[in-house]
Amino acid sequence: MFFHRQELQFKAVPDEPDAVFARKLQEVLGGQYGEITVAMQYLFQGWNIHIPGKYRDLLFGIGAEEFGHVEMLATMIAQLLEKAPVGITDEAVQSDPAVAAVIGGTDLQHAIVAGAGARPVDSMGNPWQGSYITASGNLLADFTSNANAEMQGRVQVARLYHMTDDKGVRDLLSFLLARDTMHQNQWLAAAAELREQGVEELPTPSNFPLSNEHREVSYQYLNFSDGQHASEGSWASGPTPDGHGEFSYHEGPTTTAPMPPPTHPDARFYGTTELPNPMEKAAGTAQDKMKKE
Amino acid sequence: MFFHRQELQFKAVPDEPDAVFARKLQEVLGGQYGEITVAMQYLFQGWNIHIPGKYRDLLFGIGAEEFGHVEMLATMIAQLLEKAPVGITDEAVQSDPAVAAVIGGTDLQHAIVAGAGARPVDSMGNPWQGSYITASGNLLADFTSNANAEMQGRVQVARLYHMTDDKGVRDLLSFLLARDTMHQNQWLAAAAELREQGVEELPTPSNFPLSNEHREVSYQYLNFSDGQHASEGSWASGPTPDGHGEFSYHEGPTTTAPMPPPTHPDARFYGTTELPNPMEKAAGTAQDKMKKE
Amino acid sequence: MFFHRQELQFKAVPDEPDAVFARKLQEVLGGQYGEITVAMQYLFQGWNIHIPGKYRDLLFGIGAEEFGHVEMLATMIAQLLEKAPVGITDEAVQSDPAVAAVIGGTDLQHAIVAGAGARPVDSMGNPWQGSYITASGNLLADFTSNANAEMQGRVQVARLYHMTDDKGVRDLLSFLLARDTMHQNQWLAAAAELREQGVEELPTPSNFPLSNEHREVSYQYLNFSDGQHASEGSWASGPTPDGHGEFSYHEGPTTTAPMPPPTHPDARFYGTTELPNPMEKAAGTAQDKMKKE
Amino acid sequence: MFFHRQELQFKAVPDEPDAVFARKLQEVLGGQYGEITVAMQYLFQGWNIHIPGKYRDLLFGIGAEEFGHVEMLATMIAQLLEKAPVGITDEAVQSDPAVAAVIGGTDLQHAIVAGAGARPVDSMGNPWQGSYITASGNLLADFTSNANAEMQGRVQVARLYHMTDDKGVRDLLSFLLARDTMHQNQWLAAAAELREQGVEELPTPSNFPLSNEHREVSYQYLNFSDGQHASEGSWASGPTPDGHGEFSYHEGPTTTAPMPPPTHPDARFYGTTELPNPMEKAAGTAQDKMKKE
Amino acid sequence: MFFHRQELQFKAVPDEPDAVFARKLQEVLGGQYGEITVAMQYLFQGWNIHIPGKYRDLLFGIGAEEFGHVEMLATMIAQLLEKAPVGITDEAVQSDPAVAAVIGGTDLQHAIVAGAGARPVDSMGNPWQGSYITASGNLLADFTSNANAEMQGRVQVARLYHMTDDKGVRDLLSFLLARDTMHQNQWLAAAAELREQGVEELPTPSNFPLSNEHREVSYQYLNFSDGQHASEGSWASGPTPDGHGEFSYHEGPTTTAPMPPPTHPDARFYGTTELPNPMEKAAGTAQDKMKKE
Amino acid sequence: MFFHRQELQFKAVPDEPDAVFARKLQEVLGGQYGEITVAMQYLFQGWNIHIPGKYRDLLFGIGAEEFGHVEMLATMIAQLLEKAPVGITDEAVQSDPAVAAVIGGTDLQHAIVAGAGARPVDSMGNPWQGSYITASGNLLADFTSNANAEMQGRVQVARLYHMTDDKGVRDLLSFLLARDTMHQNQWLAAAAELREQGVEELPTPSNFPLSNEHREVSYQYLNFSDGQHASEGSWASGPTPDGHGEFSYHEGPTTTAPMPPPTHPDARFYGTTELPNPMEKAAGTAQDKMKKE
Repeated sequence: MFFHRQELQFKAVPDEPDAVFARKLQEVLGGQYGEITVAMQYLFQGWNIHIPGKYRDLLFGIGAEEFGHVEMLATMIAQLLEKAPVGITDEAVQSDPAVAAVIGGTDLQHAIVAGAGARPVDSMGNPWQGSYITASGNLLADFTSNANAEMQGRVQVARLYHMTDDKGVRDLLSFLLARDTMHQNQWLAAAAELREQGVEELPTPSNFPLSNEHREVSYQYLNFSDGQHASEGSWASGPTPDGHGEFSYHEGPTTTAPMPPPTHPDARFYGTTELPNPMEKAAGTAQDKMKKE
Repeated sequence: MFFHRQELQFKAVPDEPDAVFARKLQEVLGGQYGEITVAMQYLFQGWNIHIPGKYRDLLFGIGAEEFGHVEMLATMIAQLLEKAPVGITDEAVQSDPAVAAVIGGTDLQHAIVAGAGARPVDSMGNPWQGSYITASGNLLADFTSNANAEMQGRVQVARLYHMTDDKGVRDLLSFLLARDTMHQNQWLAAAAELREQGVEELPTPSNFPLSNEHREVSYQYLNFSDGQHASEGSWASGPTPDGHGEFSYHEGPTTTAPMPPPTHPDARFYGTTELPNPMEKAAGTAQDKMKKE
Repeated sequence: MFFHRQELQFKAVPDEPDAVFARKLQEVLGGQYGEITVAMQYLFQGWNIHIPGKYRDLLFGIGAEEFGHVEMLATMIAQLLEKAPVGITDEAVQSDPAVAAVIGGTDLQHAIVAGAGARPVDSMGNPWQGSYITASGNLLADFTSNANAEMQGRVQVARLYHMTDDKGVRDLLSFLLARDTMHQNQWLAAAAELREQGVEELPTPSNFPLSNEHREVSYQYLNFSDGQHASEGSWASGPTPDGHGEFSYHEGPTTTAPMPPPTHPDARFYGTTELPNPMEKAAGTAQDKMKKE
Repeated sequence: MFFHRQELQFKAVPDEPDAVFARKLQEVLGGQYGEITVAMQYLFQGWNIHIPGKYRDLLFGIGAEEFGHVEMLATMIAQLLEKAPVGITDEAVQSDPAVAAVIGGTDLQHAIVAGAGARPVDSMGNPWQGSYITASGNLLADFTSNANAEMQGRVQVARLYHMTDDKGVRDLLSFLLARDTMHQNQWLAAAAELREQGVEELPTPSNFPLSNEHREVSYQYLNFSDGQHASEGSWASGPTPDGHGEFSYHEGPTTTAPMPPPTHPDARFYGTTELPNPMEKAAGTAQDKMKKE
Repeated sequence: MFFHRQELQFKAVPDEPDAVFARKLQEVLGGQYGEITVAMQYLFQGWNIHIPGKYRDLLFGIGAEEFGHVEMLATMIAQLLEKAPVGITDEAVQSDPAVAAVIGGTDLQHAIVAGAGARPVDSMGNPWQGSYITASGNLLADFTSNANAEMQGRVQVARLYHMTDDKGVRDLLSFLLARDTMHQNQWLAAAAELREQGVEELPTPSNFPLSNEHREVSYQYLNFSDGQHASEGSWASGPTPDGHGEFSYHEGPTTTAPMPPPTHPDARFYGTTELPNPMEKAAGTAQDKMKKE
Repeated sequence: MFFHRQELQFKAVPDEPDAVFARKLQEVLGGQYGEITVAMQYLFQGWNIHIPGKYRDLLFGIGAEEFGHVEMLATMIAQLLEKAPVGITDEAVQSDPAVAAVIGGTDLQHAIVAGAGARPVDSMGNPWQGSYITASGNLLADFTSNANAEMQGRVQVARLYHMTDDKGVRDLLSFLLARDTMHQNQWLAAAAELREQGVEELPTPSNFPLSNEHREVSYQYLNFSDGQHASEGSWASGPTPDGHGEFSYHEGPTTTAPMPPPTHPDARFYGTTELPNPMEKAAGTAQDKMKKE
C-alpha cells in the first residue's frame, strides 16, 4: 500500500515563471529516463522479485521515494507555467516577437490540454509508456539497468542545470543530482553485493550452463568495421571480467554459414514465387484446393 | 557505409517448422532488448561519439555485427513459418483442436501481413520503436546501458532455449548466448577502462562539479517503505563506489518542504478556481478583456 | 454507409494565414479529445450497440456530424498554412527573427510531410490512435465517457479561442463551442434517460449482483493522504448517488492483508533466487533436466 | 511524498496458477482503464489543481489508494504465473495439446521478458501510456472523466469475474468491484457538489461567455443519419440539463457553407497544381527564385 | 459533410460465430492497410489537395465509400463475436481443451474491453494510428501510395479468405476483393492520367530542377551486397522509366568521402571527450563559467 | 552479414551549425519515409523473399546502401548541432530574442537526451517504429510500396532543400535527391519487369482466382460524394489497367443490404440491452448461473 503526505521532500518553487523550461523539465518527469520510469521500474522489480529481505526492501524503499520526485517535478512545472505567457496573451504581448519566440518553444498541450499543468510526457510531447521500464526477475541484469537509468537521469539533470539561471529551479535540480549520485552508487553497490555473495555471477544469467553455449566464440572480439583501434581496448585481449576466459581479437567473423535458400510457404499466402506462372507448379495442390473450395 | 555479404555468421536452419516459436523468437529480434535495439543503439552511439579511436571503432565494429544477428533471426523465423500451419490449413487440419491451439499462439500478422515472413515487432506484436535505444554521448552511462542490454538479451535467449527442443534452433541460440557472453564482458571491460584511464568517473557525469549538488543527501539511503532489511545492504553503510563518501541509513526523508499553494493561472484556461463565481474576483482583469474581445 | 457532400456545416475561412495557430488547432482535430476521437467513438459505439432504436440512431446521427467537424478543421488548417511562412521562405524573410520565432512554433511536418496540409495528429505531433476511444457496450458508462469527451473538447476550444484574434477562426470556434454545448447536454440527457427508464442503473454495470462485491467497503471513503479536508465533502457522509448506501469516512485502509511471500517460478526463467548457489537446491530438478538436455 | 507499507489492502492470493487469466488481469492493471490510469490521473489532477482543500485532498487521498490496487494486481499476477506452464515445460507436458492451448493464450512476455512477473501492459500486450489520462484543470470535466474511468473499470472487472472460477481471484475482484462502486459514487457526488456550490456549471467550462458561441445551434439535435428514432429521445425536445435552453430536432444541418477553394501554397512544397506544366505559371516567382538559388 | 444511411453496401452476416476469425478480421479493419487507413488517407488527401475537379472528387467519392467498408467489417466482427465463447463460458465448456484453444487465439479486449464488439485495432491488438496514412499534396506520389495500399489490402483479404470456411464471411470478402480490384485499377489509371496530361512527371516531384541534383549518380545501380544477379535486372541497364537517362551497374559506391572527425559540442552537455581530465582543457571556458555560476 | 567501412558515400559536412535545421533533417532520417524506413523495408523484404536471384540481390544491394544514408544524415545532424546554441547558452546569449527563437524550434531531446547528437526520431520527435515498413512477400505490391517510399522521400528532401541556404547541407541533399531519382526509377522498372515476365499481374495478388470475387463490382466507380467531375477521369470509363475489364461510373452504391439487427452477446458482458430490467428476460439463464456461482 502507498500513503501520501502533503509535503515535499525538497523545496520546489521557481523564482520566475518560464514555460519553455517547464517543457524541458518534462523530460526528467515523463521521459525515457524520467522519474516515472524509475519509480515504476523499481516497484515492478519489487513486485516480481523472488527473494525476501534486503533486496526487496531496497526496491520498495527507493521506488516510493521516486514517486515523490515525480510529485516535486510536477509541482515545479505547474508553477513555472502559472504566470507564464503560454499562448493566451494580451494583444499587446502577442505582437511582441520575444513572446512569440517563447511560445514557439513551449509544450502546446501544457496550455491547450492541461490548462497550465504538468503532463505525463517527455520534452517533445511523447507520452510516457510502459515499454520504458525493465523488470526481468534477474537482479544482476536489473540492477545494471537501474544503474544505467540513474546515470542517464543524472546526465540529463546536469544538462538541464545549464539551461536555466533560475535559483529556485537550480536548487531543486541540485537536490535531484545528489539523489541520483546516491542511487548510482547504491545500485552499483547492490550489484557488486550480488556477485560477492554468490547470488548472481557473470555472464548473466549465470546459472545457465556455459557448456550450452558455443564457447569458442564467447570471448572473441569480431570486428565488422574497418576501424583498426578496437584491438587496443581491454576487450580485445587479457582476462575477461567474468573470470572464465581470455579476450581475443579477430577481423570479421570467425564462423560463417551459407544463407538458407528462400522459403516457399503455402501458395495461398500469395507471395511471389519464381515461376512465370506461379500457380502451375509449386502451388499445384493448393490451386486445386482453391478450385474445389 | 555498410556492405552486405550473402552469408550468415552462423547456421540458422530449424529442424522443424514451428509458428508458435517463430513468434516467441520475435522478442529477441524486434523487442525492447532485441537485436534491432542493440544494432541501432551501438551505431547511434558511434555516430554521436565525441572521440576518435578505439571506443568509436568498438561501437561500429559491434554495431555492424548485430545487424547480422537481426538477419540470422529473420532468416530463422521465415523458415520456422515456412511449412507451419499458420492459419491457412486444409479442412481436415482445421478441425483438429491441436492445430487450433497452435494457431492461437501464433503472431497473426506473420500470416496475414507478412505471408509467413519475419516482422520488426516483439513477441506480442508491438512494433520496434526508436525509444528503445540509448545514446547520450556520455560513454560511461551508455556502456552501462549496453551492458544491461546484453544482460537482458542473454536472459531472454536463455529462457527461449528452454521453450524449444528443436536442435537447429537451439544451435543458433547457443551461438547467440556465446556472443552475448562476449558482449557483456566487453562492455563491462570498456566501462572499467573508461574509469581506469580517467576518461570518466562516478557519479556520471563526473565533470559536473559535485559542489553544485546538495551533498548532504548524496550518500543517504532514505527508506520510504517499512521493510527493515534494506539497512543490511552494502548501500546503507560503508564507503561508496564513487570513492567520495560513506553511505548512511535513514528512515524516511531527511529533508522536507511544504507543498506550495495551488497555482492560479490565467482565468482564460478555464481551470476551476475556489471562488463561487470564479469570474468575479480572481479573473477580474481577464474577464474584462473577454468582454472587450 | 456514408455519403459525402461537398459543402461544410459552417464557414471555415481564416482572415489571415497563421501556421502556429494551425498547429494548435491540430489538438482539436487529432488529439485525445479531438473530432476524430468523438467521430470514431460514437460510430464504434453504434456498431457495437445491442439495442435498436433511439440510442443507436443517436450514435449514428451524431457520429456522422463529427466527421464533418473533422473536415471543417482540416479545411481551416490547410488555409491557415496556405500563405504562411512554414519553413520555406525567401532569404530576406529567413533572417528576420520574428519569422524564425514563428517557424519555431509550427508543426514541422505540416511543411515537410504534408506540404502545407492538415494531418491526423495533435498539437505536439503525436499521431491519433485507436486507444483514445471508448466503446464498451455498456451505454451508461459510454455516455458518461461521451459527456466527458465533449466537456474536455469544449474546454480546449475555449482555450484556443483566446489564442487567436482572427475573426474567421473565432467564428468557426464559436460554432464548435455551440455544438459542444449541445452535445454535452445531449449525452447527459441520454444518460439520465437510461436511468429514468430503468435500462441502466448505478453502480455500472448495474446488473452485476451487488452481493458479489465486498459490500462493507462499497461506501467507505478511505483516506490515503494526510489532507484533512476530504471528510468535508459530500462523498464522505450522507446518502450515495446510487441510492443504495451511506458514505462513511476513514483514515487509511479498513482492511489489510499480509503481502504474500515472493514467488518462486521455474528455475529456467533465470530469475534471481535467495540461494548462494541458486542451482543447487531450489532448481535441483530443473538443473538435472538441463544437464540431460 | 509517498510512503510504502509492505502490506496489502486486501488478500491477493489465487487458489491455483493460471497464466491465461494472468494475462487477462493485465487489462485492469495496465490497460486504458486499469489501475495505473486512475492512480496517475487522480495524482496529476491533484498536482495541477488550482484550489486547496477538500477537492485536492480527495484527489491525493484516492490517488494513493489506487497505486495500492496496482500493487495487489501485480502481486496476484506474479502468483498466477508462479507455477503455471508459461512456455517452459517438460517434454511430456509440451506434447499435450491442452498445454499448447494454454500457452497460446498467455502473454508471451510474461515468460520471455519478465520471467513470470507482472508487466505495465494491457491484456493484448500494449504498454501503458501517458495519453490514457485526463487532467485538464477543469474539475467538472475531470470528475466526469473520473466517473467514466470508474464505470469502465467496474464493467471490465465484472467481466473478468466471469472468466475465472478461482475463489482467491474472485475474492480480490469482489473487493475491487466494491471500491469501484465507492469511487463511481464519490466522483458523481463530487461533480454534483461542484454544481451545487456554484463552483462549476454546465456547459463546461461555464465561465466562457455563452454569448461568444453561436447560440442558434446550441440546443439543436442535427440528424446526420437516416434513423428516425433519435427524435424520440429526451435530447430532442424539452429543457436542456444546463437549464439555459430547449432541445429541438432537425433533419441534417441547419447551417451550411460552401467548401473553400483548394489551397495554393508555395510552389516549393511540390504539391500538385492544376496546370499542365505546373512550373510555368503559378510557380513563376518561386521557379525564378529556385534558379537564382 | 458526411451523411450516414442505416444500410450496408453489402451483406455482412456470418453463418457461424467465430471469435478467432473476428480477431483476424481486425487486421483489414484497423491495421496498417485496413479500411480505416484508406478512408482517412483519401479524405486527408482530399482536404489537402490544391486543384479542384476530378481528382478531388475522386478522393472524396472513394474516401466516403471506405468508411462504409469500415462499417461492414465492424458489423461483421460484432456478429462473429455475438454467440462465440470469448472467455465467458460455462464450467462445462471451460474445461474443454478445444474451447481453451479457441480462447487463446481471440482478441482478449474484444471480451474484456468491448464486451463482444469491434475495436479500432489490428489483429495483434495494436491501436490504429495516424502515422499509417500518407497525404503529401503531391498527387503522383500519393496515388502511388494509394495503389500500394489497395494492393497490400487485397493481398491480406485474399489470405483471410483461406482462413475461414464460413460462407457468409467469404461472401463479404469476395465483395471487398472486387472493390480492391477496382481501386487498384483506379489509382493506377489516375496516376497514369497525371503523367499523360503532364500534370506530374517522373521523378517525383518533377518540378524540382534536375540540375539541382547530383546527376552523375541519378541512374547508377550501386551494389552494396555481394549478390551477382542484380546486374541482370532492367534496373541495371537500358533506358530509365523517367525517360531522362540510362541505367548503369556498379559494384559498391562510385563516390566516397572521409567520415568527418567526431563532434565536440559544449562541455556542459557532459558527453565523453578524449582527455584524461575532460574539464582541464577542452572545457576550459565552460568550466570557468560553471564555477562562476 | 553486414560490414561497416568508416567512410561515407558522400560528403556530409555543413558550412554552419543550425540546430533548427538539424531537427528538420530528422524527418528524412527517422520519419515515416526516412532512411531507416527504406533500409529496414528493403532488408525485411529480402529476408522474406521466396525466390533467389536478381530480385533478392536487388533488395540486399539497395538495403545496405540505405543504412549508409542513415549514417550520412546522422553524421550531418551531429555536426549541425555541434556548435549551435541548443539550450545551453551563456547569459548574454540567452537574453537574445533571436536565440530564444532558434531554441524554440529545436528538438529539445537533441540537447537533453542526446547531448547534441542525432536520434532515431522524426522532425516532431516521434520515435521511428516498425509499423512504418511494408514487407508482404508479394513483390508487385511491395515494389509499388518501395516506389511510393522513394517518391515521398524525394518530395520531402526537395522541400528541405528550400529550407536551408547552407551549401554543405544542400550538397548532401542534392546527392540524396539523385539517389532517390535512381531508386524511383529502379522500383518502377522492377515492378514493370515482374509483369513483363509474367511473375506477377494485376490485380495483386494475381493468382487469386478472379471468379472468387464479386466480379460485377470489380470495375465500377461508385461515387459517394456529390462532386460531379469524377466521371471525367480515366477511372470512370475505358479499359482497366489490368486488361480484364471496362470501367463504369455510378452515383452511389450499386448494391445495398439491410444493416443486421444489433447483437445480443452473453449477459455477463454487461452491455446494455433494451429491456427495462435487462436481467429478467434476455439474461435469464446467465443470471441463474450467476446466482449459482
